[in-house]
Amino acid sequence: MSSPVEEPSLVEWLAQTRTWADAQMEQALSELELGPPVHREALRYALMGPGKRLRPALVRLICNQVGGRDADASPAAVAIEMLHTYSLVHDDLPCMDDDDLRRSRPTVHKVYGEAEAVLVGDGLQSLAFEWLALTGQSIEQVTILARAAGPAGMVGGQSLDLAATGRGDAIDADEVRRIHASKTAALIGAAVELGAVAGGASTDQRVGLARYGRGLGLCFQAVDDLLDVTGDAGTLGKTPGKDEADQKATLVATLGLEGAREEARSLAQETREAAQDVGCPEGGLALALVDHLLARTH
Amino acid sequence: MSSPVEEPSLVEWLAQTRTWADAQMEQALSELELGPPVHREALRYALMGPGKRLRPALVRLICNQVGGRDADASPAAVAIEMLHTYSLVHDDLPCMDDDDLRRSRPTVHKVYGEAEAVLVGDGLQSLAFEWLALTGQSIEQVTILARAAGPAGMVGGQSLDLAATGRGDAIDADEVRRIHASKTAALIGAAVELGAVAGGASTDQRVGLARYGRGLGLCFQAVDDLLDVTGDAGTLGKTPGKDEADQKATLVATLGLEGAREEARSLAQETREAAQDVGCPEGGLALALVDHLLARTH
Repeated sequence: MSSPVEEPSLVEWLAQTRTWADAQMEQALSELELGPPVHREALRYALMGPGKRLRPALVRLICNQVGGRDADASPAAVAIEMLHTYSLVHDDLPCMDDDDLRRSRPTVHKVYGEAEAVLVGDGLQSLAFEWLALTGQSIEQVTILARAAGPAGMVGGQSLDLAATGRGDAIDADEVRRIHASKTAALIGAAVELGAVAGGASTDQRVGLARYGRGLGLCFQAVDDLLDVTGDAGTLGKTPGKDEADQKATLVATLGLEGAREEARSLAQETREAAQDVGCPEGGLALALVDHLLARTH
Repeated sequence: MSSPVEEPSLVEWLAQTRTWADAQMEQALSELELGPPVHREALRYALMGPGKRLRPALVRLICNQVGGRDADASPAAVAIEMLHTYSLVHDDLPCMDDDDLRRSRPTVHKVYGEAEAVLVGDGLQSLAFEWLALTGQSIEQVTILARAAGPAGMVGGQSLDLAATGRGDAIDADEVRRIHASKTAALIGAAVELGAVAGGASTDQRVGLARYGRGLGLCFQAVDDLLDVTGDAGTLGKTPGKDEADQKATLVATLGLEGAREEARSLAQETREAAQDVGCPEGGLALALVDHLLARTH
């Protein structure tokens, strides 16, 4: 693990990384065939909305930390944001979470209709794999992304989440943790793993980094559960209070507000330790990111 | 192109290939992680329904014709049927074609609900790429499948189709042909291309076979348009008469019944010529398949 003497502040780095990620995505959109005009426009609306670009940032951060260049991280950074965006577009559908607001704008189905929103999500998933392949990435990257995205990961977690919704008292915190592990942590973990592979990490580094990625994902989702209760629409960019209204299985519902806060803090601590174990420097970006995600307001 | 002295009859071969494809898919389902029980059950319901397995059959046929073994064709055969099945599950959704019947059984959303049906489609797309990657296929196969599935192919074609639906007189046969080329022929063409790549075809063979695959896909969709008018639910396994009721842009709507029949016949002739140009033997499976698709009743 390299230890740069001076690192930019995390906030500065995240802002710069957002710009970088957006440029990589623009590049991909300009090189890929995006189909008929309406579809192209809807794809672009979904993908280029003002997102945090957390997953591309993780790919870049970890790739750099193990000695890779930004250019090595670029394809996976684009692919994972496409994957993540597709999941948001489908989650927001009326038959799923039925959300009108995402990234502070009307959701894709509000603007382009439900059928086109289904297709935009479907198309973004194909494009993610097409982009990895077109840019000549290893088949290993395809495996990592597909596995984290599919039934063993994100999609399976969504299905668990659906099945738990409305079951109120029958759900305990352990079931919520299982949902979080697959629904959210699998893809955030994949961002870390993709960064490690793209940067040429050793097997040992990859195992340690996988712990960091998984912890980060769990912490991220714990804070998400909290923000749905404590956040406001303006900062959040989406509608708060929906989890309770929809009787979602969340940490807040199972552990209470203080219990969920404690869980988020404890996950953050485990994640810090995982980063330290793999040699991430104190005061460096990987550790600062944990605190940043814990304290986030959107 | 090898010219086996004795080939089984096409009908015999198709039946045997259906059994082979189902066994390959069972194998894949047993090796892949399929997530929580409900999701696993819904995935299996969607994928293992009584389909024609046309795309896996094409992968196998072409792979064998250029000298590859069944084992070489297996991963792509499974992946493309997963991809195709996902597209059926999403097409049948209430916000898309709103179909209750598919492969002679209630559609996935009728049995498992809309949200789970969205997830089953999403999951099947991930699994298709995961399976190609897990079985160690080339990144080239990922490119072929992703491109044919995404905005440049099937998904883009669906979007075009949506935009054309209900526009009645404003649509001409050329626009319908463009829709067919991307909505249907891209993925059927990909089956042929994947078979060629899996079997180690030369570049020349691949170019010729691409023409055959594309022609086959156009012919298949032309017959589909006809069957919606002339078929019956029992044989078809889905609801006929829907295209007209939904004011879909079809060859029948733009050319009339006789014009659409003529188009199907002429596409079949071009496809036969493409097969002959690349050395497919007269009386062999590749040519017999053209006649079979032209004459199909479901």
